[in-house]
Amino acid sequence: MFDKEYDVIVVGGGHAGAEATAAAANMGSSTLLVTMNLQTIGQMSCNPAMGGIAKGQIVREIDALGGYSGIITDKSAIQFKMLNKSKGPAMWSPRAQNDRMRFAEEWRMALENTPNADFYQEMVSGLLVNGNKVVGVKTSLGIEIRARAVVLTNGTFLNGLIHIGDKQFGGGRAGEKAATGITEQLVDIGFESGRMKTGTPPRVDGRSLDYAKMTPQPGDDNPEKFSYLPTPILKVQRDCHMTRTSQLVHDLLREGFDRSPMFNGRIKSIGPRYCPSIEDKINRFADKDSHQIFVEPEGWNTVEVYVNGFSTSLPEDVQYKALKSVAGFENVKFFRPGYAIEYDYFPPTQLKHTLETKLIDNLYFAGQINGTTGYEEAASQGLMAGINAHLKINEKESFILKRDEAYIGVLIDDLITKGTEEPYRMFTSRAEYRTLLRQDNADLRLTPKGYEIGLAKEERLKRMEEKQQKSEDFVSFFRKTSFKLEEVNPILMSLDSALVNQSDKLFKVFSRPKLTMDHMLQLEDVSTYVNDHNLDSEVLEQTEIQVKYSGYIEKEKTNADKLQRLENVRIPDNFDYSKLKSLSFEAREKLKSIQPVTISQASRISGVSPADISVLLVYLGR
Amino acid sequence: MFDKEYDVIVVGGGHAGAEATAAAANMGSSTLLVTMNLQTIGQMSCNPAMGGIAKGQIVREIDALGGYSGIITDKSAIQFKMLNKSKGPAMWSPRAQNDRMRFAEEWRMALENTPNADFYQEMVSGLLVNGNKVVGVKTSLGIEIRARAVVLTNGTFLNGLIHIGDKQFGGGRAGEKAATGITEQLVDIGFESGRMKTGTPPRVDGRSLDYAKMTPQPGDDNPEKFSYLPTPILKVQRDCHMTRTSQLVHDLLREGFDRSPMFNGRIKSIGPRYCPSIEDKINRFADKDSHQIFVEPEGWNTVEVYVNGFSTSLPEDVQYKALKSVAGFENVKFFRPGYAIEYDYFPPTQLKHTLETKLIDNLYFAGQINGTTGYEEAASQGLMAGINAHLKINEKESFILKRDEAYIGVLIDDLITKGTEEPYRMFTSRAEYRTLLRQDNADLRLTPKGYEIGLAKEERLKRMEEKQQKSEDFVSFFRKTSFKLEEVNPILMSLDSALVNQSDKLFKVFSRPKLTMDHMLQLEDVSTYVNDHNLDSEVLEQTEIQVKYSGYIEKEKTNADKLQRLENVRIPDNFDYSKLKSLSFEAREKLKSIQPVTISQASRISGVSPADISVLLVYLGR
Repeated sequence: MFDKEYDVIVVGGGHAGAEATAAAANMGSSTLLVTMNLQTIGQMSCNPAMGGIAKGQIVREIDALGGYSGIITDKSAIQFKMLNKSKGPAMWSPRAQNDRMRFAEEWRMALENTPNADFYQEMVSGLLVNGNKVVGVKTSLGIEIRARAVVLTNGTFLNGLIHIGDKQFGGGRAGEKAATGITEQLVDIGFESGRMKTGTPPRVDGRSLDYAKMTPQPGDDNPEKFSYLPTPILKVQRDCHMTRTSQLVHDLLREGFDRSPMFNGRIKSIGPRYCPSIEDKINRFADKDSHQIFVEPEGWNTVEVYVNGFSTSLPEDVQYKALKSVAGFENVKFFRPGYAIEYDYFPPTQLKHTLETKLIDNLYFAGQINGTTGYEEAASQGLMAGINAHLKINEKESFILKRDEAYIGVLIDDLITKGTEEPYRMFTSRAEYRTLLRQDNADLRLTPKGYEIGLAKEERLKRMEEKQQKSEDFVSFFRKTSFKLEEVNPILMSLDSALVNQSDKLFKVFSRPKLTMDHMLQLEDVSTYVNDHNLDSEVLEQTEIQVKYSGYIEKEKTNADKLQRLENVRIPDNFDYSKLKSLSFEAREKLKSIQPVTISQASRISGVSPADISVLLVYLGR
Repeated sequence: MFDKEYDVIVVGGGHAGAEATAAAANMGSSTLLVTMNLQTIGQMSCNPAMGGIAKGQIVREIDALGGYSGIITDKSAIQFKMLNKSKGPAMWSPRAQNDRMRFAEEWRMALENTPNADFYQEMVSGLLVNGNKVVGVKTSLGIEIRARAVVLTNGTFLNGLIHIGDKQFGGGRAGEKAATGITEQLVDIGFESGRMKTGTPPRVDGRSLDYAKMTPQPGDDNPEKFSYLPTPILKVQRDCHMTRTSQLVHDLLREGFDRSPMFNGRIKSIGPRYCPSIEDKINRFADKDSHQIFVEPEGWNTVEVYVNGFSTSLPEDVQYKALKSVAGFENVKFFRPGYAIEYDYFPPTQLKHTLETKLIDNLYFAGQINGTTGYEEAASQGLMAGINAHLKINEKESFILKRDEAYIGVLIDDLITKGTEEPYRMFTSRAEYRTLLRQDNADLRLTPKGYEIGLAKEERLKRMEEKQQKSEDFVSFFRKTSFKLEEVNPILMSLDSALVNQSDKLFKVFSRPKLTMDHMLQLEDVSTYVNDHNLDSEVLEQTEIQVKYSGYIEKEKTNADKLQRLENVRIPDNFDYSKLKSLSFEAREKLKSIQPVTISQASRISGVSPADISVLLVYLGR
């Protein structure tokens, strides 16, 4: 049935699988997406939202490189917020609520319109392996499909087991079958596998809620968007709402603790620390008498509502009784209860920086199979796996983003270097160079790279270059142009900022903390320049950041360059650590297992001390 | 979790379940739709089309009564055709191709916007029964939900078993779980159950087809629509395409016959006779060297294509090899193979005319669970079950359509009187009064009834009455108005019809076979009348039929009235047939089992002879 050998087969059609398919196909690889259900491509399994702190930056990075997540998010958004706008620009994080149905439909349409992307619906039950190289997949019907590279993005489906109270069901998501066969084969081959857990809250009928008892959470007044391409900007938005749990709610939840699979030992695996279930929250933070609940609409028109903050695997009657006691939920009707799901993952230290497995050539893992949590984390891994699968089979250099280049670089380096014992989620705090890794400059950082490898299209590069040029020119204008005292002082006065006695360059006064681009636009010279040069909000934002944060940014760049030197000290492939007797035992074991590529990576392995690094540096002749 | 008792619980969200939910809720019953997956409400499991011969009439009837199928179909249509337009109006059958995704979305939105309709996602695993009355359902989580009536619409999900070649999988549809528990419980209670089989063709990638080698099948130039309400009319349409199998294709298919579950005894149950698999067709009609294949797009934008006429459960490699040899399919890429599915059904002679089961009060069955096939058959049963469940719990008279009132009446009477050993599909030939049961007059026949029971809204009744009035007036106009010789004779000449020598009433000349309303509109008096009275195409069509077919229609009405007399001879409940020794043994057994309500129904039971009817009539004092 499949006489032809594909370049790349992607197993799974979630965020990781969809991006992997798009990337490999757009770069020119004949790509087959195999999924258990073609109607669930691009499903948001959990909350109907993309982005958020650090995650929004990742979506911008995916977009900058030529991935689809940003475009899909913009096309299906029902609300947009730039989080942390009151903090420094390194913290600004875009987040969108999405129409769940539209999101999946846009993904399906985007992939259908991607040349070189084919689709097939069936369960992949195993890999075709020749020696230490993957050569295709095998389906539950026994069909063998050959490929030069395979990307596994199985999400929560590998031996998925759903828990609600003391009930258990096999399943990959509520109402969907689990996938079997792959874990068993990989373990036979020699892979180490583990179990992780995640959970999701109840879905309820919005018509049964009393929104008057909650606080509306509207989107931004001037919503931005994710993609650097000209995707639509929201003209109308839907509100979310906020409410809170209470001591009563917690007491009602506690009544079910003896039947909780989390607490009675039935669930053995670890869930996402920063996305805990409500029972976990009230257990770990017993002194808190209230937790926030965000009521998120599932789309433009549907009455279905997502109860963010109330993830739970308590028995459904306990979920119901407790949720009914939350303000606004007195008459709640459930569409379905929350649940927990356990699934197989493969500790990601078994991967290279390209997300290729160390054991089997041309086999790539992306998404929850690597122990991560989150749509954005999954999508970015899918993108990178798809890119690298394509590059490898075309004998081109692999594409690796460094920690000072992208959150995606931090994510993958963390995973393969440190591994993870619990679902890994991105945070700004994980990025040592977060001042450089902003959402506003992902295009400047990454689009040239995406273009160079043949993924980002020329239009994208042109837009980025134009934005860069315009904002550099605008910064120069601020550096060169002097302000007029009589214009600036009234503004400073209104801000309670010290007045100026003599004119100086615009750059200098703009650097003052309280002054924003909006103030600058009140100056005649500035507004004339903006009009003459037809500058858009993206250029204004970029320029503002370049002027006001130039000091921080320069400092971080210097730090990054310094550390980059260690990054450039490469450790030879298959380096024999056993001959370095001065290494600590733990360091030797870890280094053998992780096989870091550079001294810098070696230094990030937990258990490898600065002393061990010195030993290595001496041996390598530095 | 469900403290409240619902009026009606509907199990299943397909065509039957969705109509049942809408009907019961719209009539005022608090209604809960329980489905294994809320995201698959209103799924078209098989081909992306509604209507067709006899089936289109059913959709019009559903609409006339106040059901949703016609509205949903119109809103999601991508092509419309009035089939059999060259034949008499009894044969005119509307048919639409639909956007599969839109169709399901429109259903979901329609149900969400129906007051009194609630939703819950979980598998129903059993019924709550008290004595001989159903009082609710039980879910796989063990939740008990109480209700005063329950409608089961389980489709192909009850112990569904999917076959492809010699492979078998449990499943309700490709990629979806089967449902268990209900059959077993009903059999324990005393229900007779059986197995049926249906099948579906492969879905393929439209980009891989060569449409130049096929014949385009466009929609009508002036597309009509299904609903009598002002739903949108298609302005653009998508073409289907036609191609054919060949002797080579048949030979390739035959190579797989030894691995066919149809032929090697693995599938024991009977499939739909008039929707056979391709292997069945070439087996039964071995002399035919070609069969038609209709290539149907799955929506406005998707590249997915439905291969109508190529339903098969042969091994996937055989499907592929054979389909590749069909003109236009040389480079076909499969999205998924065709398959057969076996599922439980309950012989429908166990039901009353209301679709309530005879064994368990307030329990209703609708759709494939009754041994029918087809979306329209399912939807109409769901509608009737929903209506009757509501009426029963409100102690109102049941709503039964007679055989001369609706195809729906024919369908249900056939099912409960004759039963069915193979998937039952509607045909015009099944309706003895098909001249009365036309697609054009379903509103005139049924909207007053739908309004009377509180389902059809006043707007619908008003529109019907206006149409009726306008067309009656227009018919009178034809009866009263004389034509002008100099206008009519040129038309007759152009049609090679005998000229007229003296003026007569318009009605008379319009009755000639070759003359249509289009010709009449060329006459000045007629076109003036039409403009003055602002008559729309529906009124024109209705008037045309009333003028041109009045003879046939009158005759059929007389026949129906005659037979109606037998329909009025009611047989008392629990009539003791054993005391009528003159009945044949077979008749006595069948009558006891079916418990017909009228002599007319008794006469339609196979095995009950005219002699037996005479015995009954004598006994009942006629």
